[in-house]
Amino acid sequence: MPGENASMNICTYSFEEYLHLVKSFHGHLAPGLIVGGFMVDLAMKHLPEGEFFDAICETNVCLPDTVQILTPCTIGNGWLSIVPFGKFAVTLYEKYSGKGVRVYLDTEKLDAWPAVRDWYLKKKKKSEQNTDVLLAQIKEAGPCLFSIQHVQVEPEKVRRKKMGPVDVCPTCCEAYPKRDGDKCQSCRGDTPYTDVTAVVMKTKN
Amino acid sequence: MPGENASMNICTYSFEEYLHLVKSFHGHLAPGLIVGGFMVDLAMKHLPEGEFFDAICETNVCLPDTVQILTPCTIGNGWLSIVPFGKFAVTLYEKYSGKGVRVYLDTEKLDAWPAVRDWYLKKKKKSEQNTDVLLAQIKEAGPCLFSIQHVQVEPEKVRRKKMGPVDVCPTCCEAYPKRDGDKCQSCRGDTPYTDVTAVVMKTKN
Repeated sequence: MPGENASMNICTYSFEEYLHLVKSFHGHLAPGLIVGGFMVDLAMKHLPEGEFFDAICETNVCLPDTVQILTPCTIGNGWLSIVPFGKFAVTLYEKYSGKGVRVYLDTEKLDAWPAVRDWYLKKKKKSEQNTDVLLAQIKEAGPCLFSIQHVQVEPEKVRRKKMGPVDVCPTCCEAYPKRDGDKCQSCRGDTPYTDVTAVVMKTKN
Repeated sequence: MPGENASMNICTYSFEEYLHLVKSFHGHLAPGLIVGGFMVDLAMKHLPEGEFFDAICETNVCLPDTVQILTPCTIGNGWLSIVPFGKFAVTLYEKYSGKGVRVYLDTEKLDAWPAVRDWYLKKKKKSEQNTDVLLAQIKEAGPCLFSIQHVQVEPEKVRRKKMGPVDVCPTCCEAYPKRDGDKCQSCRGDTPYTDVTAVVMKTKN
């Protein structure tokens, strides 16, 4: 097909297969997931040597879903960390040595792709964006939007902290991390819930 | 099959199908994902009325992956929030009204399931646990391990904050949230990276 790059895969998936996975997992074809797909693909191609790698996303918007779709790293298994920089960058690093590769959207490479630039730099409101043009430019540009760095990661700065010993909270009778004190954080008032009432459970049939 | 509960589904999946999804997404059959499967299933059965729901996990260990496997809510699309209570509880709530249902592992219901109690209260080291017995007890107990509450959620306390306007960081030339000041958090020294060096990219073939 003219204009189609036959070798344009996202990791082990064809571009179309990847779009299906995005829709299924993330719910819709967000531009961040398409950009992210090319980023993770590029990071995988520059993976540091070693048996296991962990991932860092520098934003919690979109990009973590790309990592969860394309790599074994998830929020729940602890191999994906999110650091709150609000930056569109992803790092994959060897679990033990911390040697890593960081891929980021490079503002200096965006002149040829104005819709991508306007989206990334929030020059236009969502309602003013032409999503079709934006997605077409992302697909056309592919890996050309990014730069890559070798980085040394300090894993203890990003990895999930262990929960440590647990206690039963005297107020709610649920288990909580002992280090939090004499009752759980929720019962100490740091809670998003009000009007809590027990529900009588139906018996199993 | 004797002892088999034919109606034991996890949301729209059979128990066995769910185990496959867990292995594929999370990497291994962690007890937290099996417990979590029954919890999310129970929450879905008590879902408050409304077109859309969001999710809250009170731990970042295991449970977020259950939610991401079984519901449309993910970290990257912002419909899943993690609040750092270190508690094994999940809440699904109607997006606009905040009316929700919270399911938690109930310490008062664990006497009949000593392996589950020892795992949940961390009475034994991982190396001393008998995983087969633990998984069998979780499967046998199913929804009997939990209690349910109606809760009113204050969505603004848990939802992802908007990034707001962006700027280009004068140090790294990447986009970052303007509210963070005159350069990005990473360039202000709050970084897990050392020894950052640019990689010369191979040209596209």
